[in-house]
Amino acid sequence: MARPKAALRVAVVGATGMVGRELVALLERRRFPAAELRPFSSGRARFSVRFKGRSIPAPAVDFRALAACDLVFLVSSETVARRLAPSLARRGVWVIDDSSEFRLDPKVPLVIPEVNAAALDIHKRLIAGPNCTMTGLAVAGWPLHKVARIRELRIASYQAVSGAGRSALGEFFAQTRVLARRLDFAPDGRAPLFPVPHPRALPRAIAGNVFPQVGSFDAAGYSGEENKVASELRKVWGAPGLRVSVTAVRVPVVRGHALAVWLGFARPLSPARARRLLERAPGLELSQEGGYPTPLDTAGRVPVRAGRLRAGVDSKELALWVVSDNLLKGAALNSVQIAEFLWRRAWLRRDATS
Amino acid sequence: MARPKAALRVAVVGATGMVGRELVALLERRRFPAAELRPFSSGRARFSVRFKGRSIPAPAVDFRALAACDLVFLVSSETVARRLAPSLARRGVWVIDDSSEFRLDPKVPLVIPEVNAAALDIHKRLIAGPNCTMTGLAVAGWPLHKVARIRELRIASYQAVSGAGRSALGEFFAQTRVLARRLDFAPDGRAPLFPVPHPRALPRAIAGNVFPQVGSFDAAGYSGEENKVASELRKVWGAPGLRVSVTAVRVPVVRGHALAVWLGFARPLSPARARRLLERAPGLELSQEGGYPTPLDTAGRVPVRAGRLRAGVDSKELALWVVSDNLLKGAALNSVQIAEFLWRRAWLRRDATS
Repeated sequence: MARPKAALRVAVVGATGMVGRELVALLERRRFPAAELRPFSSGRARFSVRFKGRSIPAPAVDFRALAACDLVFLVSSETVARRLAPSLARRGVWVIDDSSEFRLDPKVPLVIPEVNAAALDIHKRLIAGPNCTMTGLAVAGWPLHKVARIRELRIASYQAVSGAGRSALGEFFAQTRVLARRLDFAPDGRAPLFPVPHPRALPRAIAGNVFPQVGSFDAAGYSGEENKVASELRKVWGAPGLRVSVTAVRVPVVRGHALAVWLGFARPLSPARARRLLERAPGLELSQEGGYPTPLDTAGRVPVRAGRLRAGVDSKELALWVVSDNLLKGAALNSVQIAEFLWRRAWLRRDATS
Repeated sequence: MARPKAALRVAVVGATGMVGRELVALLERRRFPAAELRPFSSGRARFSVRFKGRSIPAPAVDFRALAACDLVFLVSSETVARRLAPSLARRGVWVIDDSSEFRLDPKVPLVIPEVNAAALDIHKRLIAGPNCTMTGLAVAGWPLHKVARIRELRIASYQAVSGAGRSALGEFFAQTRVLARRLDFAPDGRAPLFPVPHPRALPRAIAGNVFPQVGSFDAAGYSGEENKVASELRKVWGAPGLRVSVTAVRVPVVRGHALAVWLGFARPLSPARARRLLERAPGLELSQEGGYPTPLDTAGRVPVRAGRLRAGVDSKELALWVVSDNLLKGAALNSVQIAEFLWRRAWLRRDATS
């Protein structure tokens, strides 16, 4: 049977991971024109993935098989990205990498389509997707930055456990089951002081707790995650002088990263004008006044969602609450949206690459 | 039997509530010189409290019985405070009120002993204790404010459910038990998207969720809690021009309010110098560099705890993480510490009041 000319061979490395499974499901749900899907496990080949009603085994990575594809999604580690991405791109394969390995490489576009699709280039086949924590803010802040120039950002995050991977999430589930048995008022009517369940995958207990550590700390006292958010925002917005301070905090939530943000502008910007700008921002859903999104009602949703828009400490500052699904817009969805953009520009069609 | 001259009749209104029980336990544990403890329920008289090995019934409020006491702790509603506090104080009874009713009254001292014990006055018998969310920051920021003058504050809170009262906490417990049964990876290895349990006491589901609403919103978009934090910090620090913006967020934690704070100063203040100041601050425990407190390891602890001290967006800003037990330093403990101060100053002894 002849394969349609404009249909693609698509591979997903890390297809059985948490983001990988979301990505495969999105390719199907959004009818991405993949004539063939080749899932690979980035570690041991233990699982298969479901795609269009079939169960497809995900073997260990095979470079020759990847090199024969038109488009490879990498949703795996920095190590795997380093090993595969540059050599695939050199052979003309489009590579969309969700790891942090190439995000700050000046030769690699770091792309959120609603913000900087213009950074995509037919000659730059390796493309990086951004950190899941900064994505929502990058989308929500961009229309305001264009108009009033953001100079300073303070960001406090409320990050879901799924952002730390499957073993962290399993630990959260197990701790929650222990906690559920202990949560009751004591005979004297006082609230419980339960012992800390022993954490392994995460630095502290997460059920019934929050902790301000995502990654390890540098000499200045900032965590890896906090530094990623700052430097990736500067790159995606093309704002190298942006002053950013982040406190990244893990919270006992399954899916959905929330951010409390203060945006400091070069020029005054009223909440009313900002509201008009955000109401027509692509990829963004702004709550009515008095409303706000939460992680629980944002999980599984495509748009970035924002609310609680109001003045900050002075007329040049706004405060905003932003929530996005860290596995979707923060990762899998953004990668698929990049691929959709390449497809629409006809850069991805087989006749363009072969 | 003769009652010792310097021993007090102490009443607690709201003694069977969450803060009330903590307060009664603290009076015993800290050997407060209460010769007689008279607990009252602020609503229906349904419970008793334990004090020094005895179970004492807590009847409905009896004004004459309260007026015969030397010291009355009010840990109840604004309505109850309005009804009781001024008339008791006029009769010479010392009243320490934990509600928000009189906090911003210019004639009433709003006191955190480590910060502004000097506001106490033998002629002002009605004393207000502060909002549980701002207390930790009031203690941790004060030594820095004295040296480098804080001009701007951005605060994102991570507030425990116990701060919303017993019925909210019961709702959190019930939702957590439901959630614990649902939390497992789906057969395809994906993380669950569970339906939202129906909330009643709180505005949204809290198990597996966070939401940025504590109180109702004003026309400017700020919640009641956010406005309390701002105005009470200004009063306790004696800093009427302080610019404050707060995002108050409820998180699925039983006890312990955490804050991510950015402190903007009039003068540059290095993290190293701030560390030296905070290491000897009264009532504060500063983590080693790289360490930090969490709500789970702070619940039941007396001191305010802080960590993650580092530079903010410029040399005039510091970022800080602050955690305190909202039922203790945020409420019951602070009230007892005010009473201890009055006792040490001999203002409380019977011979001073009768």
